[in-house]
Amino acid sequence: MHFAAPQQILSFRLRFGYSYGMSKSIHLITLGVEDLNASLAFYERFGWTKAPESVDGNVVFFQANGFVLGLYPQDKLSADTGQTGIKPVPGGITIGQNFESRNAMKDGLSKFISAGGTILREPFEAPWGLIAYAADIDGHVWEFAHVPGFEPDADGRLILPSGKTQ
Amino acid sequence: MHFAAPQQILSFRLRFGYSYGMSKSIHLITLGVEDLNASLAFYERFGWTKAPESVDGNVVFFQANGFVLGLYPQDKLSADTGQTGIKPVPGGITIGQNFESRNAMKDGLSKFISAGGTILREPFEAPWGLIAYAADIDGHVWEFAHVPGFEPDADGRLILPSGKTQ
Repeated sequence: MHFAAPQQILSFRLRFGYSYGMSKSIHLITLGVEDLNASLAFYERFGWTKAPESVDGNVVFFQANGFVLGLYPQDKLSADTGQTGIKPVPGGITIGQNFESRNAMKDGLSKFISAGGTILREPFEAPWGLIAYAADIDGHVWEFAHVPGFEPDADGRLILPSGKTQ
Repeated sequence: MHFAAPQQILSFRLRFGYSYGMSKSIHLITLGVEDLNASLAFYERFGWTKAPESVDGNVVFFQANGFVLGLYPQDKLSADTGQTGIKPVPGGITIGQNFESRNAMKDGLSKFISAGGTILREPFEAPWGLIAYAADIDGHVWEFAHVPGFEPDADGRLILPSGKTQ
């Protein structure tokens, strides 16, 4: 018979936790923008802080929870990706913030709108929680949510319930 | 005179670190897809693992590094956001993975293409590193990168150099 030593169990848990909960990572979400300074100003009004690694007039980085949100001129992004003949239309990807309560969600949405965002859909009751959608000044769609059981943790991360039990 | 007690210094650092490095969080990146099962199969071939919180035929969740990547039918997403009259065109947002080496980046890209992705731009030398772009089966644009100084850490997170010094 074989009994796992404590180190082996720990090692298995670490590997299992890594391979499941962290099976894949994403490091940079880049938003194509029309006017870099205008979009930076919008996100600063919304409360984000430009990281020192940003390059004036070229790219803006914001440190998020374990990854980076970037702003980059759409014409440069299209050139980089080799898609200069295509005009992107937002709405195919949404960027969601989960809040710890319904009131915190409404406050977050209000701050986004006050910063210059456009409401797409006022808060509504979805089967899973309270949801609203709004667009930034380039039309990128943000989701504001309070979903019971899917609140962010103290470090601002969203770990699914199944990931917390491991 | 006032000298800060160690606890006060620690508290300040924690708050400073939180308010700067984690000034904002994002919890859910949702990709609108044409055929949920086909897109799930693509991302599974690419190596992601469907979380148990997913709802068959409705939504797929993948646990990423501190946030969640979701797949959701585009028609439902458009209905939710109140934008049923708009047909999104990808290319305005890119989803980036940073790798620890040039070879790891090329391997990641190869895996994405083998899974059924479409190359948009073969690896090229940008001033900041080795970059390539490819589209998933719905056209969502992924960036594959090796950028010296911007490698992910052992937990799969990208913390900017300025955030590491705090």
